[in-house]
Formats: sequence, C-alpha cells, structure tokens
Amino acid sequence: MTATETRVVGKRLPKLDAPDKVSGRIQYADDLDIPGMLTGAILRSPHAHARIVSIDVSKAEALPGVKAVIHAGNVQQRPFGYGHDNLPLKDRKVRCVGDEVAAVAAIDEATAKRALGLIDVVYEVLPAVVDPLEALEDGAPLIHDERLDIDGNVSMRWDFETGDVDKAAEEAAVIVEGTYSSPLAAPGAIETHVVIASFDRSGHLTVWSPVHMVFMYRKELADTLGLDWGNITIKQPPVGGSFGGKIDIDTHDFICVLLAEAAQRPVKLAMSREEEFIGTRTRQPIHFKLRTGADADGNILFRDTHVISDNGAYNAWGSHAMLVAMNTVTSLYRVPNSRMRCAVVYTNKSYGGSVRGFGNPQSTFAVEQQLEEIADALGRDPMELRIQNANQAGDVTPQGLKITTCGLTQCLESVKEASGWNERRGKMKDRYRGLGAAAFIHVGGGARIYGSDGCGAMIKMDDSGQISLISGSSELGQGSETALAMIVAEEVGVPMSKVRVIHSDTDVKPWDVGVHASRTTFVAGNAARLAAGRARDKLLAAAAEVLGKDDLVIEDGVISSRSEPERAMPYDKAIRRLLLREEGNVIMSTAFYDPPTENQDKGYIGNISATYGFGAHVAEVEVDPGTGQVKLLNLWTAHDVGRAINPSAVEGQIEGGAVMGIGLALTEELPVRVEVGELMAPNLHDYGLPTMVDAPRIHVDLIETNDPLGPFGAKGIGEGGLIPVPAAVANAVADAVGIRPRQFPLRPWKVLDWIQTGETSNVVKGAGRG
Amino acid sequence: MTATETRVVGKRLPKLDAPDKVSGRIQYADDLDIPGMLTGAILRSPHAHARIVSIDVSKAEALPGVKAVIHAGNVQQRPFGYGHDNLPLKDRKVRCVGDEVAAVAAIDEATAKRALGLIDVVYEVLPAVVDPLEALEDGAPLIHDERLDIDGNVSMRWDFETGDVDKAAEEAAVIVEGTYSSPLAAPGAIETHVVIASFDRSGHLTVWSPVHMVFMYRKELADTLGLDWGNITIKQPPVGGSFGGKIDIDTHDFICVLLAEAAQRPVKLAMSREEEFIGTRTRQPIHFKLRTGADADGNILFRDTHVISDNGAYNAWGSHAMLVAMNTVTSLYRVPNSRMRCAVVYTNKSYGGSVRGFGNPQSTFAVEQQLEEIADALGRDPMELRIQNANQAGDVTPQGLKITTCGLTQCLESVKEASGWNERRGKMKDRYRGLGAAAFIHVGGGARIYGSDGCGAMIKMDDSGQISLISGSSELGQGSETALAMIVAEEVGVPMSKVRVIHSDTDVKPWDVGVHASRTTFVAGNAARLAAGRARDKLLAAAAEVLGKDDLVIEDGVISSRSEPERAMPYDKAIRRLLLREEGNVIMSTAFYDPPTENQDKGYIGNISATYGFGAHVAEVEVDPGTGQVKLLNLWTAHDVGRAINPSAVEGQIEGGAVMGIGLALTEELPVRVEVGELMAPNLHDYGLPTMVDAPRIHVDLIETNDPLGPFGAKGIGEGGLIPVPAAVANAVADAVGIRPRQFPLRPWKVLDWIQTGETSNVVKGAGRG
Repeated sequence: MTATETRVVGKRLPKLDAPDKVSGRIQYADDLDIPGMLTGAILRSPHAHARIVSIDVSKAEALPGVKAVIHAGNVQQRPFGYGHDNLPLKDRKVRCVGDEVAAVAAIDEATAKRALGLIDVVYEVLPAVVDPLEALEDGAPLIHDERLDIDGNVSMRWDFETGDVDKAAEEAAVIVEGTYSSPLAAPGAIETHVVIASFDRSGHLTVWSPVHMVFMYRKELADTLGLDWGNITIKQPPVGGSFGGKIDIDTHDFICVLLAEAAQRPVKLAMSREEEFIGTRTRQPIHFKLRTGADADGNILFRDTHVISDNGAYNAWGSHAMLVAMNTVTSLYRVPNSRMRCAVVYTNKSYGGSVRGFGNPQSTFAVEQQLEEIADALGRDPMELRIQNANQAGDVTPQGLKITTCGLTQCLESVKEASGWNERRGKMKDRYRGLGAAAFIHVGGGARIYGSDGCGAMIKMDDSGQISLISGSSELGQGSETALAMIVAEEVGVPMSKVRVIHSDTDVKPWDVGVHASRTTFVAGNAARLAAGRARDKLLAAAAEVLGKDDLVIEDGVISSRSEPERAMPYDKAIRRLLLREEGNVIMSTAFYDPPTENQDKGYIGNISATYGFGAHVAEVEVDPGTGQVKLLNLWTAHDVGRAINPSAVEGQIEGGAVMGIGLALTEELPVRVEVGELMAPNLHDYGLPTMVDAPRIHVDLIETNDPLGPFGAKGIGEGGLIPVPAAVANAVADAVGIRPRQFPLRPWKVLDWIQTGETSNVVKGAGRG
Repeated sequence: MTATETRVVGKRLPKLDAPDKVSGRIQYADDLDIPGMLTGAILRSPHAHARIVSIDVSKAEALPGVKAVIHAGNVQQRPFGYGHDNLPLKDRKVRCVGDEVAAVAAIDEATAKRALGLIDVVYEVLPAVVDPLEALEDGAPLIHDERLDIDGNVSMRWDFETGDVDKAAEEAAVIVEGTYSSPLAAPGAIETHVVIASFDRSGHLTVWSPVHMVFMYRKELADTLGLDWGNITIKQPPVGGSFGGKIDIDTHDFICVLLAEAAQRPVKLAMSREEEFIGTRTRQPIHFKLRTGADADGNILFRDTHVISDNGAYNAWGSHAMLVAMNTVTSLYRVPNSRMRCAVVYTNKSYGGSVRGFGNPQSTFAVEQQLEEIADALGRDPMELRIQNANQAGDVTPQGLKITTCGLTQCLESVKEASGWNERRGKMKDRYRGLGAAAFIHVGGGARIYGSDGCGAMIKMDDSGQISLISGSSELGQGSETALAMIVAEEVGVPMSKVRVIHSDTDVKPWDVGVHASRTTFVAGNAARLAAGRARDKLLAAAAEVLGKDDLVIEDGVISSRSEPERAMPYDKAIRRLLLREEGNVIMSTAFYDPPTENQDKGYIGNISATYGFGAHVAEVEVDPGTGQVKLLNLWTAHDVGRAINPSAVEGQIEGGAVMGIGLALTEELPVRVEVGELMAPNLHDYGLPTMVDAPRIHVDLIETNDPLGPFGAKGIGEGGLIPVPAAVANAVADAVGIRPRQFPLRPWKVLDWIQTGETSNVVKGAGRG
C-alpha cells in the first residue's frame, strides 16, 4: 500500500505547545487565580476500614478564616462509581486509608490545614482486608456490606469463552501454566490533580479541571451532586501529564464543588504529592493464572485464564480494565479457543483507575512470557513462533475484533533484525545478558465503551486566512493539538501555521467521549478531517467564482486550476472575496465522526475498535547475579502506527510509553503495609519513577500500514509503547539467567530470590519436546 | 401587521450578565492578571503643536525595574487612520496635547511613571490652531504639512446633492437659516480603556481589549505594526461601557503591543481617567449652517447645509460621522431636494471617534429646530407639520434609503398624546415652561460601511441539552448576549436557560464586522436565528426517527406531533438518541447573515441599512430666567423598535440613551484652552456626565412595526434614545422662553446670554406667514 501524497502529514514538526511549556510560560490549573478564591483541604481517613461514629466540625467552623466545613452530614450527595459504591464524603464507613471524611475551604492553605486538625472524627476501627485472596475467603471482612447485589467482596465478574478450551487442552502437545502478578502502581504525572470550582451569581457552575473526559465528568458531577448538567461549564487548563490518572472524575472534584457551593466563593483544591499517591486512582494489582497450549507444530490452540483484579475499596474505571486485558488473551496472535474467568475484588486499599495501557501490560506480561515458554518447550525460536501465529489483515478474532490492517509480522521482523535476535538470543548467558521479546495488540481506532465513541469538530476561517478547528478532543500533552492542526492543514491545503486548535471548554467545543483508548488522533482526527474537507470544498467553490474554473486544487495555501495553473489565487484572498461583498459569506463547517464499531454483547463479543494497533519490542538486559539488579541495555521497538501524522511526535509517544513501561518492568510500585493498608512511601523519592538517566537506548521503527479508516491512514498509538515492556524485560531476564519472573516490577531482591530458588519452568504438559 | 406568536421573544427578562455585574463578580480587563505582566505608561505631549527635536531615553532605560522604553526611533510602525495621518508613537511632530511620544513598560506603575519623568524630549513649539474656522484661513498653521494630497487643513470633504436645491429655494414659501454647533464631548464610559498584550513563545500575539470591532482591530494592529494578522488572537473581556469610545483601535493599543514586543513580557496599559479624556477619542464639535425651505402648505422642499467638522489632530472614525449626519439631512421626513457641503478640518486638539449617535444628534439638533421654526413661520403646529412630512413605509428617500417599515407617524402621535402637546405647548410661557419635540431617523438594520456588514453564528448542542451559540457579535453591556440567547431559545423552541452565548474570542467566533450602527440585534440576531433554525430542523429530524412522525413541533423544550400530541419527547432526549448510538451524530449548525444592503456610491447614494429606526421625543423644560438654568421635567419617547425582543432591555437602552442625550443637551462638554489647545478639566468631577438624579421621568412607548427582515421583526435600537434629545430640549427652551439655542449643551450662562441678547428667529424668507 502506498501512502497518500502529503505536504504536512508525515513531516517532523515540533509540538505547538512546546515553546510555552519548556519556557514555563504556560498556565496549569494550579497557576490560575480566580478572584475571591479560597483554598480547600480534605480530611482523610487514617484507617483502612472503620465505622464513622461521629464527626464534630464545630471547632473548625469557629476558626477565623474558615468559610466552609463540609461532611456527609451537611451536604447533598448521591453515590457514584460502578455499582454506586462510593460517596464524595463518606457517611457510614471508611474503606481505605485516604478516604474523604470532611473538607474545609479557608482563606489560605495554612488556615485550611489548621481547620482540618480541629475536626473531631470518632472511628470504630474494623478488621481490614488488604490481600484480594484473603478478601475472597469465607468470613473475610465485608467491605461493602451495604451492597446486597454482590457476592462477598467480589464486586464484578468478567467471564468469557469462545471455542472449546477443554477440548483444545486435550489436543495440545504443550501446555504452559503459571501465575503472573502486577503491583499497585501510580500514573505518576508530574502535575498533581488540581480542581477549581466557581458558581456565578446566576448559579452557573464553572469547573477548571485537567480531566480527559469532560462531558462524562460534567454528567457525573451533576448526577452525584444533584446539579443541572446543562448549567455547568468545564474548562480544561493545560495538563501537566495524566497517563490516565485524570481520565475521569475523582472524589476531590465533587468535594471542590461542594465547598464552592457551601462557601459561595470559588475554591481551589490541589492535591499534595502525598495525596496524589493516596487519594487518587492507581493501576490496580492484577493476578493472572494463565494456561496456554499449542500443538506440536507450534500453533497456539488455547488460552485459559483466571484473573483476580485487586481493585481496592471502590469501583472506579479500574474495575473495567478486564475489558482490555481480555483482548490480549483472546486476540494477541491467532488463538482459536480462549476462556477467561475474572473476579474484581474489593480490598481495603487505594482503588484502580484507568492508567495508560489499562490492564494490557499486565495481560501481556502473562501471555507473552508463556509464548516464549511454549517455544522453549517446543525447541522453537519464540520469534519464529510469534511470526507463525501472528494476526493478519482480514482476520476476525474469536472475540469479534476485525483486523483490517496488521503490521505485526513486519514489527516482529523489524525488531528481530534490529536486535540481532538470531545471533544473540540465548548466546549471552555467560555475561548474564539476554534478549526477550513481546508483542501487543491494542485498540487503535477508538473503543466503544459508551453509547457513542464519536467526536465533533467545527471549522471556521476568518478574513486573515486563519483557520480555527474547534474540536471536542483534549490535549493532555500527548500532542493531539499538533496532530489535529496537521490533519486540517493537510486536508485544506494550507501551511500548518494557519491552523489553530481550540479544545478546552465544554461551552465551545462539540461533544466528544473524551481521551482514552488511544483514540484522539483516529477519532478526533477523522472528525477534523471531515470538517476540513467540507470547508475546503466551500473555499474552492468561492475561488471557482473568481477564477472561472472548476478544476481547482489547493496546495500550500495557493488555489490554482489543474488545467491552467496560471489561474491561481491565495486561499485567504478567496475567503475575503467571498466575505467582503454584498450577500457575502464566511467559511464554516461542522462534522461528527463516530467510528463504525459495535458495543460488545453480554459475552464480550463485538468489534470494539475500528482498527487495532500492533507492535513488538525486544529488550536486552544484563542481570547482576549477585544483587539481582536488572539493567536494561537496549529496547528495540517497532509499531504499526497506520501512518505517522508527525513521526517525531509518534516516536516521542512510543519512547515516552516505553520509559513508562520500563518503570513498570523494573521499579514502580506502591507497597502497602499489610496490617493497616496504608502506603509505605507515598512520595516521588521512593516511588520508582524512571527518569532520563534510567532510559536505555530506545530504537523506534514506525511501520506504516495505512489504515483505510484512519485519518491519512493513522492508527492510535498513545498506549502501545509501554504495553509489551514488562513482558519483554521478563523474557530477557529469563534468557539471561534462566529464571521465570512471576511478577513485576523486577526489583533486585525479587530477581535475586528467583535466581536463588531456581523459579523456572511453567510447563505442565509436553516439557522438552523440542 | 401582527407579530409572530412567541414564547421567549417579547418577554421581560433580566440581562444574563446582570447578577455578576451588580455583585462585582465580573472581571473586566483591568482585573486580569497575566503571569509576568508589566505595567505600561505613555509619555504624552504637553504641546498642541510642536516639532520633536530629540528624545533621550537613556536615563529611563537605566532605571531599575524598567523593561522597555520605546519611541518612534526604536520601533517599527506604519501610519494608520484615514489618510494614514497618524503614528502610534509620533516621530516628527506632535499635533495635540496628549500625543504619544514615548512609552515604558516596568515592573509596577510607580516605576513606569518615574521612568516617564526621566525621558528628555526637546520640542520646538509651533503655532497651534484650535478653532476650525481659523484652521481654514489662509496662512493658518498647517497641521499635516506632510500630506500633499489635501488642501490646507481640510482633511476630507463630503459633498452630496439630490434634486435641485436652488430651484426649490426659489419656490419655497418659507426658508429658515441658521447655524448650529455642538461641543467637544466624551463617550464617558465608567471603564477607561485598558489593553493587555502578550506574545507567547511561538510569537503568537494575544490581546485582551474591550474593543467592539475585533476583526477590524486585529487587521489594523497587524497592518500598522507589520505583524501577521492570522497570528493574533483578540479576546474581549466584559466591557464596562463604551458608547462608541472603544469601537476601534486607539494609539495605546499599538503601543501596548510594541511594549510587549520590546520587553518580551505581557504588558497592561490602563488609561487613567485624565488620559481617558485626553488621549482617547471624543465626539468632535460639528458646526452646521443649515437652510430649510417649505411651501405654503408646509411641505418641506429642501435642505441645504454647509458643515464644518472640527475633527481634531487626526482622522479616526470621527471623520466619517458625516455619513450618518447626512442621512438625517436627506431623509428625516420627506425632503425632495437636499445638499450638503462638508469639510472635515484638522485642528490641534483631541480628535473624533465614533460616539453613540455618530453625527446624528448634531444633525438632528439643526434639522429639528428648523422644523419647528418653519412651523412657527407658517403658523402651523410643528407636530402636525412633522406628521404631514413624515416618512412612510415604502418610501425610497432621494439618498436611496429604502424605508420598509416606518412607525414615525405613530411615534409622533404617541408623544403628542402622552405629553398633552395640544393642550400644553406654547401655553406655559408664564411659568417659563415649554414643550419641544424632535424626531429621528437612524440605521436600524446594520450599516454597510465595509465590504461586509455580516455576522457569523455557530450552534452546537450537547448531551445535556445545552445549546451554545458562538456568535461573531460582542456584548458591550448593551444586552446583546441576552437578546441573542432569547432569539435562539425562541427559534429552537426551548427555555431561555438552555442557551449560552459565546462571543469574545477571535479564535473561536466567526467573523463579524463588529458593534456599530445599532446593528447587533438585527444582524447578529438574524445570523443566530438562521443557525438556530437549522439546528432545530436537525433536532426535529432526529426526533422524527424516534417518534415516527414528521409533523413535529418543539415548544418549551418538548417535541411533539401536531396530529398526535401524545407522541412527544423532551428535546434533550432527542439529542441523546441521535448521539448515543452506532453511527450517531451531534447537532451543530452554522450561518452567516449579511443584510441585503448596498455600499453607497461616490455620491453617497445607496441603501446603507436593511431597515431604519424612527422615533420621536417630547421634552418638557422649565427655564430659570434669572440664571439660565434649564430643568428637564419630563421626556416622552416613542420608538419604532420593529419588535421588542426583550421589552425591558429595549426600554433600558432607550432610557440609557435618553440620559446620554440629556447630558449632551444640557451639560456635557470638554472646554479647550484656546491658546494652548489643552483640555481645561479632564475629570469626571467637572465633566457634566448626568447621573441618576439628573434624569427626569422618562416615558417610553415601544412602537412595533414588525420589520420583515428583522429577527422576529426587530430593528436596531442602540442609539436612537439619545439622538433627538438635544433638539427636543432646545425646542422646549424655545417654547418656554422664546429664544433659539444655537449650540448645545445648554449651559445656564449661554441660555442666560441668549435670553438677554434676544437670539430668536432664523427665518430668512416668509417670516410670519402663518
């Protein structure tokens, strides 16, 4: 397939917001100052599980400078979250350390903090359960005893089966089985959560929040607080990183609005770093018990998995990570039979959100280690086995995913070649070095998780030739503003500098489901392209009147006739010729793009995304056998990006994702004190966020498959970079020192322990056939 | 004609921005704080006319805290204004007191002011000419000696003639001749001019300015400073009053941008009250020498006028006030022959802008006094004479104005009746009381003064049912936001609370020529109505799919079938049904409305506006013969408003206009020290701005003529309220004490002088025929 010839798309361009970001000129939410604004602060539970006996706020209310003190007893609130299991301010019980019990708004932070100290809460401490397996035991403390609709602490089940797994297991020549676990981790954005709420004197609420999914956020805000959602404006200041942490509404968002309502003043609520770790959403631990079977020729026959998602105290987005984890189990490589039995379990600790990758790094960690184990058992090269089983364009997976384009084979070939796989894998054990590979599948054309997966776009051109795209999308630092501007510039036929992207105010922008599932370039990009095409057609019609030709093209801002190229005019002049006359007009257009996808049925069957992204990584590690320290030397990556709108930005996304994956693989976790359920070290010093110096050389190869539905062929690529990294690193460690990692991150003491205990093969049937 | 039946239009509703304005919550430009912002200050000429010999800024630059010092020698600037006669920072000469010579940006106001004091400017003072008649004399100092394209100090001529005035004069039974003068006055907004300029690190300029005509402003900014106009965003904070004072660009706007460029920091430039009077645009003095003739039956035969517009040092909008003054001379009442010879003259003083009414109060002062003088000469009642000569629907005036609807007769009848005219006029001289009337014509359907008189509108609906109108228009306090929201609510068929109006950012809003000529309700209203109608049609189509009926109507937000009213659904549900499904859509629409008007030809013939507003006032005064003090006891007003979208707001506009007219009539002027050309008292204490206690009872009668082109029949009414007031008051003074005011304001000492010198009749032919 050859790419459409383009003049802007495909260029390496700097991000539009980069100059102001790197120079510190940009104003994040915490830089905003609304006249009369108060500072909010939240009183949080020190207990993982306790009954609230009483709350006395009288001393706090009496403190000069305090303008509002709120708690469940003096506000109107309704339950929110999946299963309606959460309240902004807890009423009867607290269920994790950090649970919100009361809040104050005061003239400054010191006063607000002092007021928190004056609130008397009497708790009756209850037995807590922090381990999900213990939570499943009979007689375990019931965390949501008020929920009569669930079984014990199991808040949700995800069960899926296609084909006949048991029959496939009988037929399998090789079966590998094992457990694979991931830790409690954090999105780790540098900007903590900050929200500002302000009611005007007509009762209209404006909220400034760096949230991704503004329209859903607005609805949840209104539903939970009994407000009129049509009377709320959400403004999105520039976002200082999110990685899913700011995807939707959090408890403090409701509290900020409640404080603003109680104080009748604007209120800012900014999370401290500690609160960011304790009080906002995490990547929940997931425990996979996976079996994979293959025939003697190396064809994968089945996957069978039991999953426990340790989702914490409440059901936020994290409860739905199985949706994505499942795609990998059923559809990474051709897997005719698959089964998944999953329990999402309540525990008395931080609860899961939608962190970048959303269940997929965990799932891929299990699936891709077993792929190499199967190969080892068969005596096959795992890269060859991957290529043999790779998805291909035209496939429809048993879960119903329609693979329209697929660069997986090319990606595997690319990293195999680049890493010197054939020459080096399994041949560096003497130096404790190894190579490990992993591939991934991820939604690349939106993900239909709501009634609509669409995004609106409006375009207007003015007399200067400036073209404004008003997009429903949101810029989180992922570079969507730049990508969308390029798409519009390309589609209209003007230089990039002529396009401005407006996308941060719900009053102004058309509806969009929000940023998630790597969908912005694909969905918002298609909407922008449609609107741009309509605007361009109007522009050419206007020019046709002047030039007297109807075979017009526009390139680099010049409109000319194909047959008589000397008949030409600048596009902005065409705008003015249309506008500045009697019965004039100005060029505007609108478009809405909802990808042609399906809501999955009750059995989780359905084509959730309009296209799928694929990629493969090879990690090279060196393990210190004395300390267990894993050093990542190289990471070769190849991604099917459909088409790179802006190769530099795509590489940046992949590299950034890879670094996040390296954190997941090697260092990032939030240990919890088991007895009391509190985080041991909620700070950036101890949390293992990788920095520039922790990154090895990351090699990026962009495979362009020109997706027929993608804007100029593009697929979404926002998450792929991190997904295979823990698996690839684990496989590399296996290659280097012959042990099989059961969990990530691969902290030295664990690796050392595995080396010392000889934790190796998971093969339960057909070991050593090769 | 009967009005369309409406549910929102025609209701008395509070202005949407009122709660935040009256509670002080709103943020005007001066309340904005941009991080890193500097304070700017301008060094102004103390001389009315002088050569700039040298400027030394070295001491100012050396002052700690000073970040930029600019003057003509160190900036890039091009001439601006009509005739390109002005520069942001003067280079060779200053031509009025207050002329901008240099400017600084510093960390605070005190430092900026101190720095101004350190700038050494050496002037060579030149003879100044402040009186326009002296400026016309041979040998008068040449103010713009660099302009070789003009004749002496005459910057512009406006000559117009239709019919045969000289022949009509021969045929006339009565001719009245006289001179009528108006003073230098100020728009007098409570908010002074404030501008903020900030370049981002990519070089994109954002300007916050309470200007009316944002797109023109942006172009002028770019043209004058050599910037890319497509790379400039203008944001309009809420405006604290303008009355034309903020219509377009002023010198300080350029200077603020130049300072921001030089300092590479955001800069705010806020005019002090004194600077507001000295350094921003005024209502220029205009001197009419008018002759009016009528036949013995009282039919007006001709008007002949020589006008000198004392336009000050440079040609801003004020130079074009003749455009409006001329409409009144040619087209108020049926006037078959008319002539106008006008010279716009440079003088060494403050120069004219486009203040509310824009030449019309001055013109009406002359025309409507002569109408009563003609009536007196004929022994006719002036109200009857007006009714006899009144314009009627269907008329095309000799200047080409097409009178589509006309409530003038009704207005005259209304104020005649309400004021007890027949019983009281001419019958209260014993108590020194009198009644005087005046009518007006003014553009009411836009005014085509540029290539386009159009306005764009975009509408989007979201899942909550919120409807956003993104309008090209601007809210200056005139209430357009509320009127536009009502128009959209009416046209879609939803409650007013569902509509939000967005109109303050050039990146977001579609093109509009800007606020002037009472055009917003008419032009922006029509654009909004068109867009709303298109959106409603999409909404009904969406509902038709659900309800299975195609005879749907929407009322109060409920969509139902005409034939089966029980088939119904809330409109917001229809939005969601359309959106939240596979292949969904969201409702958006766009529209551009450019009224069907003509650019006037070189002879000033052409239908400049799509409709015309009319009105009549009767003033009742009591004159103190010992002091000359004129007390206004009552003001009866009747206005042809087409249709009152919001009667309370229309009345408020008329009352506010009337109070402004009262200031013009009685107190407002800026005396100039003749020798040196400086304002005697540039402060609100001495400037005669009327306050609540100066307002008499103002009676408002709204005459609805349901203009066929107006949105729901509305005409523009923003300026009418003030136009006839000086004339009506002068006529009332004539009725009370028998003298004929030659100029306004009618300050006591002038009235006393006229009473003492017996300044009375202007009748030059046919006196006392009645």
